[in-house]
Parts: sequence; structure tokens; C-alpha cells
Amino acid sequence: MIKTELDLLVFGSLLLTMSSQQAVVEHPVLGIRDGKIVFVMPRKDFQEGAYCAKKVLNRRDTLIMPGLINTHTHLAMTCFRGMADDLPLMTWLHERIFPAEAQHVSPQMVYAGSLLAMAEMILSGTTTFCDSYFFVDSVARAAMDAGMRAVVSQGFIDFPTPDTPDPSRQLDTVERLIASWKGASPLIQPALFCHSPYSCSPETLLRIKAAASRENLLYMLHLSETREEISLIQERYGRKPALFLRDLGVLDSATLAVHCTWLDEEEMAVLAECGVRVSHAPQSNMKLASGIAPIPAMQARRIPVSLGTDGSASNNDLDLFREMDTAAKIHKIATMDPTVMKARQVVQMATLDGAKALGLEERIGSIEAGKAADLIILDLNQPHLTPMYDPFSHLVYAATGSDVLTSIINGNVVMENRELRHLDLDAIMKEVKAIAKRIKKGHRD
Amino acid sequence: MIKTELDLLVFGSLLLTMSSQQAVVEHPVLGIRDGKIVFVMPRKDFQEGAYCAKKVLNRRDTLIMPGLINTHTHLAMTCFRGMADDLPLMTWLHERIFPAEAQHVSPQMVYAGSLLAMAEMILSGTTTFCDSYFFVDSVARAAMDAGMRAVVSQGFIDFPTPDTPDPSRQLDTVERLIASWKGASPLIQPALFCHSPYSCSPETLLRIKAAASRENLLYMLHLSETREEISLIQERYGRKPALFLRDLGVLDSATLAVHCTWLDEEEMAVLAECGVRVSHAPQSNMKLASGIAPIPAMQARRIPVSLGTDGSASNNDLDLFREMDTAAKIHKIATMDPTVMKARQVVQMATLDGAKALGLEERIGSIEAGKAADLIILDLNQPHLTPMYDPFSHLVYAATGSDVLTSIINGNVVMENRELRHLDLDAIMKEVKAIAKRIKKGHRD
Ligand SMILES: [Zn+2]
Ligand SMILES: [Zn+2]
Repeated sequence: MIKTELDLLVFGSLLLTMSSQQAVVEHPVLGIRDGKIVFVMPRKDFQEGAYCAKKVLNRRDTLIMPGLINTHTHLAMTCFRGMADDLPLMTWLHERIFPAEAQHVSPQMVYAGSLLAMAEMILSGTTTFCDSYFFVDSVARAAMDAGMRAVVSQGFIDFPTPDTPDPSRQLDTVERLIASWKGASPLIQPALFCHSPYSCSPETLLRIKAAASRENLLYMLHLSETREEISLIQERYGRKPALFLRDLGVLDSATLAVHCTWLDEEEMAVLAECGVRVSHAPQSNMKLASGIAPIPAMQARRIPVSLGTDGSASNNDLDLFREMDTAAKIHKIATMDPTVMKARQVVQMATLDGAKALGLEERIGSIEAGKAADLIILDLNQPHLTPMYDPFSHLVYAATGSDVLTSIINGNVVMENRELRHLDLDAIMKEVKAIAKRIKKGHRD
Repeated sequence: MIKTELDLLVFGSLLLTMSSQQAVVEHPVLGIRDGKIVFVMPRKDFQEGAYCAKKVLNRRDTLIMPGLINTHTHLAMTCFRGMADDLPLMTWLHERIFPAEAQHVSPQMVYAGSLLAMAEMILSGTTTFCDSYFFVDSVARAAMDAGMRAVVSQGFIDFPTPDTPDPSRQLDTVERLIASWKGASPLIQPALFCHSPYSCSPETLLRIKAAASRENLLYMLHLSETREEISLIQERYGRKPALFLRDLGVLDSATLAVHCTWLDEEEMAVLAECGVRVSHAPQSNMKLASGIAPIPAMQARRIPVSLGTDGSASNNDLDLFREMDTAAKIHKIATMDPTVMKARQVVQMATLDGAKALGLEERIGSIEAGKAADLIILDLNQPHLTPMYDPFSHLVYAATGSDVLTSIINGNVVMENRELRHLDLDAIMKEVKAIAKRIKKGHRD
């Protein structure tokens, strides 16, 4: 008998596929070859002799699930983590964050801060992220070094930025990104990000959207994060933000709108009609007192809603398990209905709906034969996960990122038993501490 | 020179005293003898030769702070963790929790479930808890076995309970508790808990309060958890819950009111006037969609507000770091003011204000010479805590319980480098899993 060769064979106690059938497999076996899932089956159907695998992962009391997908980050902002908290949004942004960025953002800072963020994300179960920042080449290089799957999106705003000092040259920045990263790696998808409808002119919004459409890239923007934005757009353009963007022609199924805190019924209908996807960042929205996005209403309209942490200056961690917990709870209290945002649905937001938000649902977001092998293995043998009546409940309401033992991205084991395989964590932390020292001095001067 | 003998000498990178001066000590040294803190000083003032210690803890990149104080738990409910989520409160309570309790609560179940909870609490940085449940003797014995500091409070309600089948014999239950545990150990304080003003008659509320006052014990009750309670009490007694309790004469500085979700200004004034302390359980209040307690308004009236997790059937974990995070964020969004509930104040709620809530502020809640040595040591050398501009920000917004390395209670090292010293975790988890199996079967029958 000829044995089927595998790169990796994984055993567990329980597996959540998160496929549209959302099957739960008890005592699962999972085979991986060439970065892809070859099969998932219950152990009783598994024929030991039919396979030979280069590596076997087999540990008692483990749960296997798709790797988590963080659809909104500004990774390099780990360098500003905890630098400015408990402040009004405008003070925070204009007096602390923007000046720090103007002074300190460089390709080196972005590489170091992003790599630190990736270490944190891998250690807390995230396998794919969608980042929006400057010096995107540094983010992409860091993702390659970390072995993470990434949508790296170039940020634009209508004032000079560290990587585009002359805003009239924005398309040059787009060209550079595409030349470097389009099709360069199965792990990396370039994308384009306009900061917001209030900080980008209609010309910028349209120009960047046109480039995204031409190159078939995801187009992102912060939308309706604060109440101030609503009145500003209303005043400037005579209509609500989502209607303004729809009329401008930038809303379609390749558009990912971040926050959507203050959308009303009419705007949600517009988003649903245009096929727009949403990234929800509840911890950031709470910490900055931005508002509570009407997520259950969006989901009732079948708008795909995913989860994002936002940057570490406004959260301040990148742990999607904690974001799931908050997402489940904040909408219960906002609607005074404990039956909304059920645990199973929230896990879907962090997996398959995350893939949908990024247009990657054919490749990732669930554990199915043929999809990329992006998965995480959790240690169930812990007091806070004992006993277990319902695995979805534990993932949302009791687990944290530190329960993730092992992480596999594109078939590659990037963390095993909480040891990072590709990253020198001490060196990364040392580098970011040195950057923070310079930032602190900058503040004192 | 005669050397001062110590039981324990602890070195760290940073120490937060949480005393009323709230000093931060860099490169601290802390000496412990006979369960008490002998001194705290910066390393530069420390004379190596002047002390000899039986044990030394000295690890790089650590933060030392007072152990966290969880002022509201129902520990044995770990046995029901995740059994019933995302349900309306009344369905959850009457169709799931009360029947499961009636069928399964026993001295053995309470001991096993409480011990599991204590393992989880120690592993996440809690050193003192205030529990309210049945078969309190089992809780106290578990606390002694775990080495935890505990307020163990006997629950009363006006229907037959597992340990008081005849409600007219409530005072017998009180007598047994006092005989067994009053003054029995410096770690254990007995206390009395009336479930709520709507589930206990005025006679019960008064009778239990009288016993508490006579014996100088803390008196607790759930107060204004849901809107339904307000109208129920209004209908039954013609006034708001806090006013009803004040008029009944059960509110004073030895009263701890839990939740206080729907208090209005007049009721807060009553609580402040009577010196009542409050336990705030934001995660439970959100998950059950009970409401958002007006905590910043209470604090403005100088009502001491502490933090509680509530039971594992309504949270579902016992990690006070996550509770701090939620407490900080929920009130920012509820008031639309990001400057309320600043990180430093939230850490105080989980430490010194927790001690105040329990009437133990002379003994615990801060690191000061003469106080009991209840403290925890966190590992700062982690990506999600890097860089560090402000330790309070990290504790509230980025840390989780799993960052706690070592825990000391009454001078006794109960966890060292994440290894529990007094508990056989595998045996405890096995026992609770067996209980859960019986509970699951009960559901199917
Ligand atoms: Zn953002
Ligand atoms: Zn309670």
C-alpha cells in the first residue's frame, strides 16, 4: 500500500470547523500538505497506516479551530502602547498621537513595532491581520519574517505623512506598494486605506478607490467613528457619511468600513445594498468613548461584520479573545437583550466573517479540505476552562490568548507549545523599548 | 552585627504600594516575616548584610503589587460554567440555575467547585475573595486548603435552600457558621448574605442584619440588579429599594451592596449617608443585560466601590484583570467621557477599595509595613506589556491574569512561577468534570 505523504498530522480532543455547517468534530485528525488542509476526520475513521507525516502534533485536551482574523490594526502603534490613556479623543489624537507619529514614524520603527505586534498576535491566536499604516513595506517584510498572513494596507490622509510628504504624490506610493508586494507571496495582500471621509477629500477618496478597483485590491476606511464626524460630513456635503460615500461611488463589496459606530437605519441599508463589509472594534470604541456600533442591526441586514482590535494606543492589546468577549457583552447591554451576539456567532465573526471581510473566504476562515492550513490549538486542561458544556461559550467568555498553545499558518508551525518558532522575542522587545525611550525623551524636550 | 531574620525577601523592577500616597517604588526590596510586611524600600537603601532570609524571590522584569480583592463571587458555580449562556435573565435563573442548584448543590460539590475557583483565582492574581453561597463550611475549608484569604458568607433566601431546607431555621445556620469559623483563622472571616430585597422578606433581612451586627460581621445583599426589581419593590413597599432598606434599618458601614445597577441620585445619596460599600460586577451586568451601574457618580459621592466577578455561570471567568479592563471601558462609553475611570483609580478599586468594601483596609489592600503580606508578582517581560510608559495603564488595559507569576498570601507563597504550591490541580479538575458529567445527565433526564 502506498502511503499518502503529509507535512503535518494533528490530533486533538475537539475541532470546530467554523465552515458554514459549523461542524464540531470530536477526537479529530487533521492532515496538512503544501500549506493546505488535506482532510479532517474523526479519529475512528482514520487509518493509521495510510499516511506518513513529517511531523505529528498530538497533545491531550486540546481544541483545534481556525486561526483568528483581526481585520483592523495599526500594528506599529505598539510603540505608543499606554502612552496616552483616559483622554478626550481629540486631545489624544491631536496632542499625543499625531505629534508622536510625525516625530517617530520611520521604516525602522514600523518594522520593529509591527514585529512586536505580530509576536503578540501569534501568542494570542491570531493568524491573519489587516493592517493600515505608513511604510507598509516594513509591515509586509515583518509579516514575511513572522510567517503571518497579512493584508497590508497603505494609509492616506490629506496632509503630509511620514511616507508621503507630498499628498499630491499619493499614487506614486500606491505604485511602489503594488510593484513590491502584489503577487509576491501567498501570505501578503496589498490594500489601500483612506483615513476617513472627513480627513480625505472626495478627490483622494475617489483616486484611491479607482486605484484599488483597477488593481483588484481591498479598499478600507474609518467610517462614522464619532458623532462629531456625522455633523462634520453633514455640514460639508449635506448628507450622512454613508450616503455621501455611496453617492461618491466608493462603496462596493471590496470596501471594508471600520467602526461604523453611528450608522442609522438608512445608512445600514446602503451598506447592505452595496455589499460593504464592516470591521467592528468594540474595545477601542469604548476606551475612546466613541460610541457603540449597532452590530446586531447590521447582522440582521446580513452585512458581514468582523472583529478588529484597532491600534495598541487605543485598546491596548491585540488579543482577539478579549475582543470577542467584549463584543458579545457590549451589545447585550446596549440592546438590553442577553440573547443577542451569541457565543457561536461571535466566534464566527473572528474567523469566517473575518475572512469574508477581507475577501479571503475561499482560502481561510474555516477548517475544510482544500483551504489554507491556518489554525490554532488551545489547551483545554485549565481551571478557567473547566468544566466544559459548550466550547463556543468558553472561547468567548472564559478563554484568553494565552490559552493558545500552538499556531499554524499556511501549514507552517509558527508557535509550538507557546514558543515562537521564527521570531527572536527578546531582540524585538529590546528594539521597541529603545524606540520608546526616544519617544519619552521627545515628550520631555 | 545582628542580622534581622526574615521569612521572605522579594526583589522586583517596580512596586505599586496602592497606599493612600499611591507610591511607585523603582527597584524595590520587600521584607516579610510572620505573614506581615516588615519593610519596603528602594534597592539603593537596602543593606544586604543586615538581613538573613529563609527564601529570596528575585526575578528580572517583575512588577510587585497588592494581591487583587474580588468582593463578589459564588465560587461553587464554576460547576455551572458555560452551562447556560445568552439567555434572558429569568429563563437563565429559573429554568437553568435554580433547578441545577436544587439538584446538585451539596457540601462535596461546594468544596470541589470552590477549590477549582480558588486555583483559577490564584493563577490570575486574586489573593482575597468574598464569597456568598451555601454550605459555607466547605468554602472555608477549601480556602484553608488553598491558603487564600476569604470572607465566607452564608446565603439566605425565603425558600428552602440546600443547606437550610426550613427557612425558619436560618438562625441555626448562622450559629453553626459562627461556632465553626469566627476567630478560627486569620485567613477566614464569616459573613452573612441576604439574596436580595425582593427574595427575602423584611423579617429575614432584619433578622440576618441583627445577627451580623451582634456578631460584628459583614452583611451583604444583591441590590437593584435589574429594572424589574425596582418596580417590584416599589409596588410591594411603596418606595425605591435603597430607601426601603434604609427605612428598614439594615444600611450601615458594615453593609456591602452588590451590583447597584439602577440606583438613582436619591438612592446614591442614601448609600453615601449610611456609609454603605458597593461591589461592582460589570461583566456579569453586561452579559445578563442587567444594566450599567452609575459608578462614576457613586465615586463622586465618595462611596467606596470595589470589583467583583460574580459567579462563573454569569461571567464566565474569575480574572479580575479582565474585570478591571471592562470596568474602565464600560463607564467611558456609558458616560461618553473617556476621562472617567482612569487606570490608576481602577487598580485602586481592585486593591485598597476592595479591602475597604470588606472592612479589611487595616490589614490588606496595599503594600505597607505592618500590613499582611498579600501580594502578587507580574512578569513584565512580555510582548503585550512592551513598551511600558505607565504601569497602571498596562494593568488595566493590557495585562491578564496569566501575567501573574507568583502569589503570596499572608506571607505564604501559594504560587511560584505559575506553579500552585498547595493545590493538586489535576485532581481538582477531574473532580469537577465528574460533577459536570452528572449535571449534564440530569439535564437529559
Ligand atoms: Zn483604526
Ligand atoms: Zn451575585
